[in-house]
Amino acid sequence: MSNQNKEYTEIINIIENKRWDKLKYSLADMHAAEIVDIIRILDNDKNKSILFRLLSTEKAAYVFSELDSNEQESLIYSMNDNELKDLIHEMSPDDRISLLEELPSDITKKIFSLMKETDLNITRQLLGYPEDSVGRIMTPEYIDVNPDFTIKQTLEYIREFGKDSETFEVIYVVGKNDILLGYILLKDLLFAKNEEETIKDLMHTDIIYLSVYSDQEEAVKVGRKYDLLYIPVVDSKNALIGIVTIDDIFDIAEEEDTEDFHKLGAISVDDDFSGNIKQASVFTLYKKRIMWLFILVFINIISGYFIGLFTETISKYVSLIFFLPLLIDSAGNAGAQSSTLIIRSLSIGYVKKSDWLFMLGKEILISAALGLTMGLTVSLLAIFRGGLTIAFVVSLSMILVVIIGSLIGLCLPFIFVKLKKDPTTSSVPLVTSICDISGTSIYLFLATVILSKFGG
Amino acid sequence: MSNQNKEYTEIINIIENKRWDKLKYSLADMHAAEIVDIIRILDNDKNKSILFRLLSTEKAAYVFSELDSNEQESLIYSMNDNELKDLIHEMSPDDRISLLEELPSDITKKIFSLMKETDLNITRQLLGYPEDSVGRIMTPEYIDVNPDFTIKQTLEYIREFGKDSETFEVIYVVGKNDILLGYILLKDLLFAKNEEETIKDLMHTDIIYLSVYSDQEEAVKVGRKYDLLYIPVVDSKNALIGIVTIDDIFDIAEEEDTEDFHKLGAISVDDDFSGNIKQASVFTLYKKRIMWLFILVFINIISGYFIGLFTETISKYVSLIFFLPLLIDSAGNAGAQSSTLIIRSLSIGYVKKSDWLFMLGKEILISAALGLTMGLTVSLLAIFRGGLTIAFVVSLSMILVVIIGSLIGLCLPFIFVKLKKDPTTSSVPLVTSICDISGTSIYLFLATVILSKFGG
Repeated sequence: MSNQNKEYTEIINIIENKRWDKLKYSLADMHAAEIVDIIRILDNDKNKSILFRLLSTEKAAYVFSELDSNEQESLIYSMNDNELKDLIHEMSPDDRISLLEELPSDITKKIFSLMKETDLNITRQLLGYPEDSVGRIMTPEYIDVNPDFTIKQTLEYIREFGKDSETFEVIYVVGKNDILLGYILLKDLLFAKNEEETIKDLMHTDIIYLSVYSDQEEAVKVGRKYDLLYIPVVDSKNALIGIVTIDDIFDIAEEEDTEDFHKLGAISVDDDFSGNIKQASVFTLYKKRIMWLFILVFINIISGYFIGLFTETISKYVSLIFFLPLLIDSAGNAGAQSSTLIIRSLSIGYVKKSDWLFMLGKEILISAALGLTMGLTVSLLAIFRGGLTIAFVVSLSMILVVIIGSLIGLCLPFIFVKLKKDPTTSSVPLVTSICDISGTSIYLFLATVILSKFGG
Repeated sequence: MSNQNKEYTEIINIIENKRWDKLKYSLADMHAAEIVDIIRILDNDKNKSILFRLLSTEKAAYVFSELDSNEQESLIYSMNDNELKDLIHEMSPDDRISLLEELPSDITKKIFSLMKETDLNITRQLLGYPEDSVGRIMTPEYIDVNPDFTIKQTLEYIREFGKDSETFEVIYVVGKNDILLGYILLKDLLFAKNEEETIKDLMHTDIIYLSVYSDQEEAVKVGRKYDLLYIPVVDSKNALIGIVTIDDIFDIAEEEDTEDFHKLGAISVDDDFSGNIKQASVFTLYKKRIMWLFILVFINIISGYFIGLFTETISKYVSLIFFLPLLIDSAGNAGAQSSTLIIRSLSIGYVKKSDWLFMLGKEILISAALGLTMGLTVSLLAIFRGGLTIAFVVSLSMILVVIIGSLIGLCLPFIFVKLKKDPTTSSVPLVTSICDISGTSIYLFLATVILSKFGG
C-alpha cells in the first residue's frame, strides 16, 4: 500500500503520454477504488473518458458508482447510448438508485428509456421506498430456497440461479409467499454428512431482519449490534424482498457520523455535501457556516443585554472583568462536555429518550463535584487578584456556573429529541452560547448582590 | 424487531420463575446479541451463570466475547476448569486476544494453562503484535490454496480443511512460503465451466491487503475505501498470515469516532471507557472531564489578563461591554466550525497533512467572506446601541475576529499533527478558549486605539 503514490504517478504519466495499450494492461491489475483515485487526479475530461472506456464492464460499473454525481454526469455525456445501456445494466440495483436520485431529470429520463425490462422493474420498485429507508439500499441479489429442498437440490439450485447473488455465505429459507423462515450457511451445506437431508432440518431460526420501511439509521444500529455481514429485508407481510450488506451500512454509518460531527460544530448539513472540504467550493463552505454564525449573534446579543444590566456594578468593581472570561467559558466548557457525551450516547443507543431523568440525576452529582473542584481552584486565584469578597463571589459563581452549564448541555439534546428533532442540533457552539448567557448573568448578579452588602 | 422489549420481559420472567427447561427452549431461537442484552438486564449473578450454561458452546463463546471485561470475569469465576477450557477453545482467536488483554493476570495465567496446544500457539503469536496493530484483530481462519490446484481439487480441499474458516466467499491464492498472489471467489469456482481448470487461470490479482504491523486505523481507512468484507493480512515478507473481517473494522471505526467525539468535546479518552455514560460511574465521568476544565482555566486567565490591560478603556466606554460576549463568541464559533471541518476531513482522509497550505489559502477566503457578512450585520446593531464610532470599532473587530478565529481553528489541528499528536486534541472548547483570547484582545485593542483618537 505504501507505494501507492508512486504507482499513481506512473499511471498518470502513461495517460499523459497516451500509451493506451500499456494503460489497459496496468488497469487490469488495479483495484476499482484506486482507479477512482486516478480519475479524480486527472484534470482532462477526455483522458478520464478514455481511461473509463478501457475498463472491463464490471469494473467500469463499480468505478462509476463510486464517483460523485458531477463526475458521473460528465462521463455520461461522453458515452453513446449502447455504452450507457451496458453500464447501467452492470450496476447493482442499489447503486443504480443512488445514481438516479442525484442526476438531473433529463439524464434520469434517458437512463430509464435505455434500461432493460427486468432492471426497470427492480428500479421502479426500489424507488418506491421512502428516501433514507432501508428499501433504497437493499439489493434483490440473494439466494432463497424452500425448506423442503434437500441439500443436493439446494446446491444445484445455487449453481443454476445464484450467478448474480451478492452472497453465497448465507442462503435464506422462505415459505409460502416468500415469508422469511430462517437461513442456512453455505458451511452447513458443504460440510453436511448426508446430501439428502432437507433444509428444514438444518436451518437456523434465530434470524435478524430489517423492515424495508425502516430508516437507514436502524440498519446501522442493527449492523453494529449483531455483527452480521448481510441482513435480510422484509416487507410488511414478512416476505423476504432484499438484503443489505455491511459495507453499505458502514458507508451510511460514516456519513451519519460526519453529519453529527458537523452539526456538533454548528455547520449546516445537507445531502449534497460529503464532508470533503478539499473539493468543496469556497461558496459551499461559506453557506454551510454562515447560518449558525448568524443565529448565534442573536443569542450573544442577549448575553450582551444581561451584561448591560450590570454596568453599574462593573464600573464600580472593574476587577470583576478579569474573571468574566473564565466564568463564561467554564460554563460553556462544562456544557460542551455534557452535551457531547449525551449526544454520542443517544446516537449509539447507550442512552434512550426515556433515560433523561436518570441521566439528569447523575449529571447533578457529576457537575456538583466538578463545580466544587473548580470553585476551590479559582478561589485561590481570586484571593490574590481581588481580595476575600471577590474570591467568595468568584468561587460561588464558578460552582453554580459549572453545574448549570452542565445541566443545560445535558438537557438541550433531550429537548430537541422531545421536539422530534435531531439531538445533535444542540451543537457545541449553541450550548456554549446559551451557557455563556447563564454564566454571565449568574456571575454579575451574585457580584451585585454580594458586593452591595459586603463589598467595598 | 419492535417486539424486542416484550420478548425480553418474557424471558426475564421465565428466569425469575426458574423455569430452566422453558428457558433453554427460548434461548435456542434467540440471537447471541440479544442474549447479551438479557445478561446485562439480569441483576443476579447466579441467574446469569445458569443462563450462560444453558447455551450451546458455540453461542456461549459468541455471547462471552461480546460482554464487558468485568462481566466476563465474574462468569469465569463461576465456571469449572473444563467449562472454561471448552469456552476458550470455541472462541475465535481475535476474541481470545481481547479477552486476555483485559483480564487480570492471575486469570490470564489460568487460561493459558488450560489452553490447547494449537490455540496456545496462535494466541502467543497474535499477542506478539503491537497493541492497536492489525495483528491483534486478525483471525487465522481463512482458506488458502496453491495456484496449481484445479477447481475440483480446490473444492475438495475446502470440504476437507475449511471447516473453521470465517469465509468461503473468498479463497486466497498463495505461492512458495505463503506469499500472497491473489484471490479467487467461491462464485468463480461454483460457476466454472471446466472443473479441470487451474486456480492460476481464474485468480484475480488486483488484491488489497494490510500489513500485520499497520495501525488498526489503517484497516479502517482501507475498509472504508475498498468496500471489502474480508481483507487479507501479510507479514513483512508478504506471506499471508490472517484475515480481518469488516465487522471488526466497523467496531473499531465506531470506537474511534466515539473517541473523536469525546476529544472534540474536551473529554479525556482512554481504552477502558466505551462511551456508555449510562453504565459509567459518577467518579469515572468526573475524572474524564475535570482535566480539561482545569487546563482551560489557565487559558481563560490569560484572557482575563488581556481584559485587565484595558480596564481604563472599559470604564470610560462601558457600552463596549455590551458587545464583548458577541465578539468573543463569534471568534470561538468560527474557530469551532473550521476546526470541526478540518478534523473530520483529516480523520476520514479527505485532507492530508501536506494540504495545510492549500487549506489555509481556502480558509482565508471563506473566513473573509464570513467576517464581512458578520461585520456588516453587527454594524447595524452597533449604530443603535453605541453610535457611529462604536459601530466602526465593533464591525472592524468582528471582521478580524472571525478571520483570526477561523484560522486558529484550522491551524491548531495541523499543529498537533506536526507534533505527532492526534489532531482531535484541539477540541472545540480548547479552540474556543484560544479564540476568545484573541477575540478579546483584538476588540479591546481596536477600541482603545480608535476611541482615543475619535471617541467621546
